[in-house]
Amino acid sequence: MKIEMTVDIKKLIDLKQFKVLKELISEQSVPYIVEILEELEAEEKIVVFRLLPKDIAAVVFTELEIDDQKKLLALFKEEKLKEIIINMEPDDRVEIFEELPANVVKNLLNYLSPQERDQTLILLNYPQDSAGRIMTPDFFDLKEDLTVSEALKNIRTYGNEKETIYTLFIINHNRKLEGVIELKDLIFADDDKLIKDIMNKEFVYVKAYENEEEVAKIMKDYDLLALPVTDSEKRLIGIITIDDIVDIIEDSVTEDIQKMAGMGVTDTSYLHTSTWKLIKSRVIWLIMLLLLESTAAFIIDGYSHVLQKVTILAAFIPTINAMGGNAGSQMSAIIIRSIALGELEFKDMKRVFFKELLIGSIMGVILSIVMGFRAFVNTQNPMIILSLSISLIIVVIVSNLLGAILPFIAKKLKLDPALISGPLISTLMDVISMTVYFSVALSLLKDFI
Amino acid sequence: MKIEMTVDIKKLIDLKQFKVLKELISEQSVPYIVEILEELEAEEKIVVFRLLPKDIAAVVFTELEIDDQKKLLALFKEEKLKEIIINMEPDDRVEIFEELPANVVKNLLNYLSPQERDQTLILLNYPQDSAGRIMTPDFFDLKEDLTVSEALKNIRTYGNEKETIYTLFIINHNRKLEGVIELKDLIFADDDKLIKDIMNKEFVYVKAYENEEEVAKIMKDYDLLALPVTDSEKRLIGIITIDDIVDIIEDSVTEDIQKMAGMGVTDTSYLHTSTWKLIKSRVIWLIMLLLLESTAAFIIDGYSHVLQKVTILAAFIPTINAMGGNAGSQMSAIIIRSIALGELEFKDMKRVFFKELLIGSIMGVILSIVMGFRAFVNTQNPMIILSLSISLIIVVIVSNLLGAILPFIAKKLKLDPALISGPLISTLMDVISMTVYFSVALSLLKDFI
Repeated sequence: MKIEMTVDIKKLIDLKQFKVLKELISEQSVPYIVEILEELEAEEKIVVFRLLPKDIAAVVFTELEIDDQKKLLALFKEEKLKEIIINMEPDDRVEIFEELPANVVKNLLNYLSPQERDQTLILLNYPQDSAGRIMTPDFFDLKEDLTVSEALKNIRTYGNEKETIYTLFIINHNRKLEGVIELKDLIFADDDKLIKDIMNKEFVYVKAYENEEEVAKIMKDYDLLALPVTDSEKRLIGIITIDDIVDIIEDSVTEDIQKMAGMGVTDTSYLHTSTWKLIKSRVIWLIMLLLLESTAAFIIDGYSHVLQKVTILAAFIPTINAMGGNAGSQMSAIIIRSIALGELEFKDMKRVFFKELLIGSIMGVILSIVMGFRAFVNTQNPMIILSLSISLIIVVIVSNLLGAILPFIAKKLKLDPALISGPLISTLMDVISMTVYFSVALSLLKDFI
Repeated sequence: MKIEMTVDIKKLIDLKQFKVLKELISEQSVPYIVEILEELEAEEKIVVFRLLPKDIAAVVFTELEIDDQKKLLALFKEEKLKEIIINMEPDDRVEIFEELPANVVKNLLNYLSPQERDQTLILLNYPQDSAGRIMTPDFFDLKEDLTVSEALKNIRTYGNEKETIYTLFIINHNRKLEGVIELKDLIFADDDKLIKDIMNKEFVYVKAYENEEEVAKIMKDYDLLALPVTDSEKRLIGIITIDDIVDIIEDSVTEDIQKMAGMGVTDTSYLHTSTWKLIKSRVIWLIMLLLLESTAAFIIDGYSHVLQKVTILAAFIPTINAMGGNAGSQMSAIIIRSIALGELEFKDMKRVFFKELLIGSIMGVILSIVMGFRAFVNTQNPMIILSLSISLIIVVIVSNLLGAILPFIAKKLKLDPALISGPLISTLMDVISMTVYFSVALSLLKDFI
């Protein structure tokens, strides 16, 4: 039976029980060590970090948040720094380098072998968020005229250092990618079959400049564990593995959610984002929304003579506005998500328009009936109730269509559809809603004013 | 060189060129066939479907949307139906069965062998969204006293039918899980080593009742290709593979985004969701929000004597309301996403509260200055401008804190934090904002009224 106990790591550090700590921590899994490190202060982090075995240290370092990585890099002695950088996977190394200042990267590059340095520089040259940036050159390639047993022997001898051996790549003398084979298929094939006879020649691959979100979509659709990346001549230059894709999907969703909430993208997790960076990512959007929103003030101000006579109209301004915002936010969220998942494309816009014209109309009618009953509590004037109901129908239909169409238009303009956020739609709609509301009220209530 | 051409499938079907079509379609990849099928009418779908080889047909069927699956099931002849159901993976079969009416499932179960039927019924008994529902019993298990070469031989002989052989599971005579080993580690180990000496005994596993989102998080953190699922006695009953996890992550994100947009969850993709279902998922939320929102009408109505004297106050109602909603929406989106990613837990609430008290205050001050300048365009009365600025500071701070804290409280109450949507926060805030706005205005403007 296993007996568990909780150990106070901070206390062990204080008591300088480093030998015990080393023993304890080397038994833990990487995600657990990362979790522990995140709770510690910078100086304590460095202590725990020094106690980790070389290879684990590099993996743990890779898994830390970028701001922790930067802090640790600043505190490391040169020897430790070299050790970490050398032991990292090429793609993880590039990910850190791209976040560091150029002069730091220049120093770190000196620790690498000439070959690794070249490799790193090549990866760093691909645009951010491209397949080239996230690929690793550590793939295992086979020649097509090997037999299955020769291939398996090769893998057993040379495969240990590669990122994966579950997918193997067959290249010709020009390094052009000719085929792909799964280790599984090798294992189940007859020993003396030739690789070229059993390899898959109709494989999927991407160019190095392909966007990483497209890469994620392909790997998901084809259920791939590894995807080959080629240059424009179809020469194999790297592979992307499924574990990186899960991170990319989550990062791109976080970005979308932040944009959809009407704010800038923060890149790092909440607790690792500074107060100042959070403010910057939010307040610029809020200022723009404030200025856009306050356009509604001119409209309402223009109807002040109506309001003076029928002040009850002011009471329902928030309701009309909110309903426009809510319907539009719902709609834009549905469309943005569907576009992100590749379920909707620009060609579907017309179909969506008519479907949502119907949906908006039905919802508008239902809501306007509820509105009528609700308004009756505050006013028994049938013309005011009618103004509210009619305005609500129009506002719901228009905001629903705006939410349905604007993300498509953003996509067409090569903007991220997620920028058509709930807050942006709500703000736009407030200006429209106030125009509709007071125009309808004025025409129905002209005898009172 | 490859010469590509586009073929009109609908035309081939019209011309009854089935042999050509069969030839053409059998060369395509599964995702591509799925894409083609989705564009076709139901009757055309069935034609193309009949031309697919047995094993491919089952995989393609699995990848279709549930409403397409239902339509096809209704059109299939009994023979075809049987063929599809038999050829599906157990976990995919369960996924379809849980969406079908009970009497259809009962008929389909008859096509299965007694053993497969039992297996399916067991999986169907686990709660929705649990590990038990998404696992497959098709894992490969090894005995611990085999040598590496014996194990490899076993895998080559019996492994072909299993969902994966890249992760292998070592169980004892009671079927209890004793260890896990990666095929990679077998390949690189000496032939005569014993499995028990090289297997990983400190493996991660989940119980069958664990929630699928927790499963996804574990597989992501530990970079696993397959995760073992056990019963309460640690007996191995199934495994979950990484390709299912990607789908779970995307589905759970879509659910979160829909909830965050203030609507019900639709389960199917937009074009596959009926107009009526879309209306239902949205209009119930909208009605609730309308009723909650209209509480603000009572507050404003209560200040009608103020409005009659200072109608310009009405002009800025939308601005004050919108800014409360926007700040709160931003904040709740950040916190909801961070909780979903496991970056924030309930214990972090206090820290978040104070960080956001600071952020809200700074943003409030910045925005109130902008507001002051903006209001000056409409009114030069310093007391009205001051009312607006002071109200805005309070509203931004309060809404920011509400957006920060409510998702934590939802989580603590075992509700989904994503239910604290932007629209809900905006609506709650409108009631608060109007109270703040008119109280501040009344106290500053009492000489005018």
